[in-house]
Amino acid sequence: MRLSRLVTHTSKESSRSEVSLNAQLLTRAGYVSRLMAGVYQFLPLGLRVLTRIENIIREEMNALGGQEILMPTLHPREPWAKTGRWDTLDVLYRLSSEGGVVAPGTACDLALGPTHEEIVTPLVAGFVHSYRDLPTVVYQIQTKFRNEPRPKSGLLRGREFRMKDMYSFHTNQDDLDDFYNRAVVAYRRVYERCGLGDRTLLTYASGGSFSRYSHEFQTLTPYGEDTIYRIPDTELAINREIVGDLDAVRDIIPGYKPGDEKMLQEHKAIEVGNIFKLVTRFSDPFGATYTDRDGERCPIIMGTYGMGPSRLMGAIVECLSDDHGMIWPESVAPYRVGLINLKPGAADVDALGADLEQRLAAIGIETLYDDRTESAGVKFADMDLLGLPWQVIVGPRGLAKGVVEVKKRADGQRQEISVESLLSHFTGG
Amino acid sequence: MRLSRLVTHTSKESSRSEVSLNAQLLTRAGYVSRLMAGVYQFLPLGLRVLTRIENIIREEMNALGGQEILMPTLHPREPWAKTGRWDTLDVLYRLSSEGGVVAPGTACDLALGPTHEEIVTPLVAGFVHSYRDLPTVVYQIQTKFRNEPRPKSGLLRGREFRMKDMYSFHTNQDDLDDFYNRAVVAYRRVYERCGLGDRTLLTYASGGSFSRYSHEFQTLTPYGEDTIYRIPDTELAINREIVGDLDAVRDIIPGYKPGDEKMLQEHKAIEVGNIFKLVTRFSDPFGATYTDRDGERCPIIMGTYGMGPSRLMGAIVECLSDDHGMIWPESVAPYRVGLINLKPGAADVDALGADLEQRLAAIGIETLYDDRTESAGVKFADMDLLGLPWQVIVGPRGLAKGVVEVKKRADGQRQEISVESLLSHFTGG
Repeated sequence: MRLSRLVTHTSKESSRSEVSLNAQLLTRAGYVSRLMAGVYQFLPLGLRVLTRIENIIREEMNALGGQEILMPTLHPREPWAKTGRWDTLDVLYRLSSEGGVVAPGTACDLALGPTHEEIVTPLVAGFVHSYRDLPTVVYQIQTKFRNEPRPKSGLLRGREFRMKDMYSFHTNQDDLDDFYNRAVVAYRRVYERCGLGDRTLLTYASGGSFSRYSHEFQTLTPYGEDTIYRIPDTELAINREIVGDLDAVRDIIPGYKPGDEKMLQEHKAIEVGNIFKLVTRFSDPFGATYTDRDGERCPIIMGTYGMGPSRLMGAIVECLSDDHGMIWPESVAPYRVGLINLKPGAADVDALGADLEQRLAAIGIETLYDDRTESAGVKFADMDLLGLPWQVIVGPRGLAKGVVEVKKRADGQRQEISVESLLSHFTGG
Repeated sequence: MRLSRLVTHTSKESSRSEVSLNAQLLTRAGYVSRLMAGVYQFLPLGLRVLTRIENIIREEMNALGGQEILMPTLHPREPWAKTGRWDTLDVLYRLSSEGGVVAPGTACDLALGPTHEEIVTPLVAGFVHSYRDLPTVVYQIQTKFRNEPRPKSGLLRGREFRMKDMYSFHTNQDDLDDFYNRAVVAYRRVYERCGLGDRTLLTYASGGSFSRYSHEFQTLTPYGEDTIYRIPDTELAINREIVGDLDAVRDIIPGYKPGDEKMLQEHKAIEVGNIFKLVTRFSDPFGATYTDRDGERCPIIMGTYGMGPSRLMGAIVECLSDDHGMIWPESVAPYRVGLINLKPGAADVDALGADLEQRLAAIGIETLYDDRTESAGVKFADMDLLGLPWQVIVGPRGLAKGVVEVKKRADGQRQEISVESLLSHFTGG
């Protein structure tokens, strides 16, 4: 892609209404654009990052045995009434299937899916006859809707956002526990691949009525909305709900005493995943059962596993950026290389730029080629803001020596490399 | 994927509420499941088909120079009020950002996107400063919402459905016309690749106030909802709106006389695409302008190009099926090969089945392996219903002779092939 053809442009300032770092940088760089509070549009560069994150998640969920499906956004009222959440879930967007202007007194009979337990439970139960059909695991990657009261954190808290939600179905608690533990490993692999592995902690959270704990994955950052309490020298933490419950903390950390500060370190963090043993919370109201080996009907045991790709994208920006802009890990960068032409219009420099663009593409490295007639200063600043992992700078001075300059965005180190050896720099050859 | 692990099962009957052929077959085969009228969930096999169709569309739109983006589903009222469509578009789902139960008298202030002209025009105009930023083309592949009054046609007419919508932005009418013609060619390539090329006609339709005609792509099938009038010996047709306008028909077919039956052949068809020269219909209300070479501000000239991947999936089923089930083209089939084990439990047959599954995977051919303990009759019927292009049948009788049976779903032809030469049958080697 050439910057002269890219539909977006960078801007020096982000809107004053953007207070979060991720929204400021992503908006200035033209990755996303805000339509209204909590609702963002993904522009070409931003959609490329989002898609790469979603594909990493997809690969790891497939490796766990998850089968991908796509459930609807429009939900009828009935299943939500059945679980009691039609009335209790504050963030549920409700609307009328009459479609038009809601007349006074018209009852809402549809909701926009904020999560899909109410839909997936009867769906999968309809295909489960006996124990031979279990375990089974389905997931989807989809746009979700929650009417958040104060969405001020950019991609971290949207009214409309991307979500991977996975649901597992088992004959018994042991099988659920086993899968749940394997899901923890798969989640850790996703954060690792997205560049957040070393700062993401498995965090004990409240479990509701059917299990003692659920777990969150929390990424440490000074600007996080959540407060968590890390258990030193581990990748474990306890969230704010749990830390006030002495019995629970002692259960997690044997020998813990109130105020024992060495035992817990307070941190700010961003929740980037949440997994939960539902057990029979949803199979009970839907009568979701299977027939066991003895011909008895038993309730299906369930787990639920959420992760937000758009929030993860925001978290990466919060954690991996500097004063000059974003710093994308190679795994999710929209392009691996930003190619900068310092003198567009000079035939030999243009020829070298086009040649390198083509040769890099031929070995599978897509470039964002800055072929605009802008000053070198503007180009360097823009490319730093965009945050591609590598910059290759082509200009008349280097050309005379047969070299290009290669800059690594993460540490700013620059080196001159001969044109001939540039490709092997990226292939490691 | 093994059928014994697949979350879905086939069923002999579809729900009585499904009257369309596509919904009957897709539901029986476990490709989709209806949540409510006009709202379907895509199950693993169905999502694989949908994804392959969307990727074909994506490739062709990218080749046209389209830049993929993702705009939101939640739209504020203002841009829809600005174009007048807030009140006039019957199918618009409206809701209140209050989120909760809509109190009597509460005004709706949000809509669910049924199309995105109101969103994309100000979005792209914000990045267009001068003629140098044009032409530019963006598209998205996304779930859309329309409150259709009678959604009885399965995937052909959904309240929630998948849509590729593309928007082009130009300095002048000639440039729009040129791009529009190239879009026609790209659309034809999509239908060709999806197996509908020889029965899909470019159809003149009403153009609204800014251009004389728009165009639909209509796929001929006896069960289509639309009636079109083909111009013999061409791939062109005229839709029902236009055929009543003698001047318009004469404009398209010089010398046409009323009732001249040889000139027009009536057919039933399914609309699988719609393209439209908007000219300044949307740039006027949004003040979307660019600065020309003389420094004058001029309105941006626009085109819009819609195509529904889920509807296209339904149309393929309507056109390519027989009494036994669906017949997917290789380009969009969920798996290219269905591998049938006639005697699961027999160690040598199981070993051969697993070996072929693995060897086919190694050359990039994914199989759906029927390893279930069902009768041969059930397996043959299920595999015909599922409609994979090729069936490879492995059983003890063939094994004794060192052969497997290969059946082509489209024509039912079977042949015995030695185990050694099976791979080259699929690689053409």
